[in-house]
Amino acid sequence: MAEHTVIIENTLRKLLAEKKYSTLREILITMNPADIASIFNEMEEERLPLLYRLLPKELAADTFVEMDQEAQELLIRGFSDSELKEVLDELFVDDAVDIIEEMPATVVRRILSQADPEMRQSINEILRYPESSAGSIMTTEYISLRPEMTVAEAITRIRRTGIDKETIYTCYVTKDRTLIGVVTVKDLLLCDDDDKLIKDVMIEKVISVNTHDDQEEVAQMFSKYNFMALPVVDTENRLVGIVTFDDAMDVMEEEATEDIEKMAAIIPSEKPYMNMSPFEIWKNRIPWLMLLMVSATFTGLIISHFESALERLVILTAFIPMLMDTAGNSGSQASVTIIRGLSLNEIEFSDILQIIWKEVRVAVLCGISLGVACFGKIFLVDYLIMGSFVGVSSPFLIIGVICITLSVTVLFAKIVGCTLPLFAKKLGFDPAVMASPFITTIVDALSLLVYFGVASTFLPI
Amino acid sequence: MAEHTVIIENTLRKLLAEKKYSTLREILITMNPADIASIFNEMEEERLPLLYRLLPKELAADTFVEMDQEAQELLIRGFSDSELKEVLDELFVDDAVDIIEEMPATVVRRILSQADPEMRQSINEILRYPESSAGSIMTTEYISLRPEMTVAEAITRIRRTGIDKETIYTCYVTKDRTLIGVVTVKDLLLCDDDDKLIKDVMIEKVISVNTHDDQEEVAQMFSKYNFMALPVVDTENRLVGIVTFDDAMDVMEEEATEDIEKMAAIIPSEKPYMNMSPFEIWKNRIPWLMLLMVSATFTGLIISHFESALERLVILTAFIPMLMDTAGNSGSQASVTIIRGLSLNEIEFSDILQIIWKEVRVAVLCGISLGVACFGKIFLVDYLIMGSFVGVSSPFLIIGVICITLSVTVLFAKIVGCTLPLFAKKLGFDPAVMASPFITTIVDALSLLVYFGVASTFLPI
Repeated sequence: MAEHTVIIENTLRKLLAEKKYSTLREILITMNPADIASIFNEMEEERLPLLYRLLPKELAADTFVEMDQEAQELLIRGFSDSELKEVLDELFVDDAVDIIEEMPATVVRRILSQADPEMRQSINEILRYPESSAGSIMTTEYISLRPEMTVAEAITRIRRTGIDKETIYTCYVTKDRTLIGVVTVKDLLLCDDDDKLIKDVMIEKVISVNTHDDQEEVAQMFSKYNFMALPVVDTENRLVGIVTFDDAMDVMEEEATEDIEKMAAIIPSEKPYMNMSPFEIWKNRIPWLMLLMVSATFTGLIISHFESALERLVILTAFIPMLMDTAGNSGSQASVTIIRGLSLNEIEFSDILQIIWKEVRVAVLCGISLGVACFGKIFLVDYLIMGSFVGVSSPFLIIGVICITLSVTVLFAKIVGCTLPLFAKKLGFDPAVMASPFITTIVDALSLLVYFGVASTFLPI
Repeated sequence: MAEHTVIIENTLRKLLAEKKYSTLREILITMNPADIASIFNEMEEERLPLLYRLLPKELAADTFVEMDQEAQELLIRGFSDSELKEVLDELFVDDAVDIIEEMPATVVRRILSQADPEMRQSINEILRYPESSAGSIMTTEYISLRPEMTVAEAITRIRRTGIDKETIYTCYVTKDRTLIGVVTVKDLLLCDDDDKLIKDVMIEKVISVNTHDDQEEVAQMFSKYNFMALPVVDTENRLVGIVTFDDAMDVMEEEATEDIEKMAAIIPSEKPYMNMSPFEIWKNRIPWLMLLMVSATFTGLIISHFESALERLVILTAFIPMLMDTAGNSGSQASVTIIRGLSLNEIEFSDILQIIWKEVRVAVLCGISLGVACFGKIFLVDYLIMGSFVGVSSPFLIIGVICITLSVTVLFAKIVGCTLPLFAKKLGFDPAVMASPFITTIVDALSLLVYFGVASTFLPI
């Protein structure tokens, strides 16, 4: 795929250098807008406008939508007013909004001044909805039908008005702007009687979302119901727009990336990594690093507190990283599973007791197997091979302390790992932020406390 | 949403107890199959078959597809042969395959014996493709058109054969089974001349996938091109099936979950968490925990090696967790970003130099800011407030050693974090497995080596 694009890119460059514009155009018109866009994104600034102007009107607009923000801005700045207007006329409203959201204010003003009044109104309407709401990702270009139309009339209407609509396949039936039903083109085409009324073929129980619903919920509904489009209504159940499956896919991808970034202690960003400056990346990474560094003070204080014990039995120090890492890994396993389950709506807060009970059993299994394996490993590697316990009195008691600590901390880690995201969700925080690094800090402290607690009970320190 | 389902569930239970079957049926037929399925999944075993039989044929099949594997198996075991046949006749082939893949062999044999010959053949064909390939998620029920048909003839054909097809909106044009074009119902409906030939309205450059392509690539193509369906061809470009957007969405979700699980050192499973037994969860979690526990031996050995130094300057121990955790977090930030970029095809191996250069600059920024903050924190908290350095000679030299170690390890961690996933990808391993826990172990060892290296250079140990 990628290699293929590079070959075409080189061909295009060559043709451009040789000024063979008509051949260039012939190649471009056979290509998919997304592929053209990925080549255009890589083109030098000065070549881009020339290449872009080779595209026929509709393909040009479709390509424009798929391009990087930088390339879009460059083109817009170079457009004459009439060129800008031509592109805007071909865009769907939701794509226009996506572009506007990324542009600096001066460019936005130019875009709005060139959009036709109807589009400008729709854009402004969508821009009013909160970021990440259903309203902000919807489009206002849908097909609406009246309940008293016949199937034949509906098909005629679709054929007449369909060209400007984002999808023609799902049509919404409204009465005084209120959403009362839904009918698909499949239903209409497969209907055996063209004189049937829409109100008799439509599905009345319409599943819809509210303008202020979160985009993540909207995406979840697509994946649950396999819809091609979902109607967006206001508080009075009036139809104001639709969300189509391709936008829902983008949201799913975006939300998964966001969750992954949060779990890795990164502040999420919508900008692709390769387009971000080191300074921007630093800004997204440093806050959590700082916070987690400072919170590691606790583990430091715990160790300081048991300094004299460690001085007497310095071999205990060697196992601190292993105990902390294993507990941390056990905790993140649980937390990450729960966080993903919450994101996919597979888990709810009310399942908490069931989850804790399950994790306790998992932890007992993990704790015992890890404890036994750890005993074997320390005996074999540290005691026999490396001789780390030479000169240490009661070595088996020490190994026992280490293994008991391991088993107990795994239990604690799993319980903390599974409950924290659930409570975060309940309290309205983002569960993903509670993941690995945050839990690691808590679990680190817990494992040290258990370690020194068990050690001072059984060992002469 | 969830509460709403609980209310309906209780109503249904009550009606069932009172044997008000016709009211029950009337409620059920207004509901969406996915919602009915989530209620049925929670029903007691003995009530399920009765409830299920209240559903009209088509709704029953749609609901069946959405149900849990356990509930499906229960129902199949209770079905008479003719009931099973009835459900199978309503299923799309790809859904039937999904169900079969989860069932024990005896149930599979029964299903295959009841499927009609054509379906049985399609099922067997799809089952032959490797797991997670395009062939394994495709369906064979698509609409194919001939290039010499007129638009009107094509519409007639769609109306006649569309009922059994997974989608009617994207139609594929074939000649001797070879895929030569694609045309949408939108193109057909909006075409102004019904006598135009399909070959004159179709798009000839069809983007397709091969039966053996990975499902993740297929999902990425949906998200790139916004297609509703994608044709699957064999090595001779013969059309063998299609993948629809809803299946691509499922794949996207599945692959994101898999990546997240791998990053958290869990062996991925397709089964939802709530349906897994503690033993199954243990099996997916323990291998990595074991491996990481054993690999922590290195950190232990490093500490053992510097035991005498630590005995002389035990305060150094207190900062080991902070140094290891911060380096670990810095490393996972980089690795997780790169892994996600690779998954979304935003990053390729050839970008490696650019990425390293970017990460080095980010690491310098992070290293300096963390180093300075760390100095301030230790001076304020540990030196002034806690008095941890009382009786220690040259405390500022020690603090300096800690902060320099921190800055240097952050640099190492970022470089390891960004390069390891890229090399993994290049060598054909899964980059996600290289993430947080694995990198943490490497980075832990590195940070200890740097710590003791810097300490023995500057301090009298």
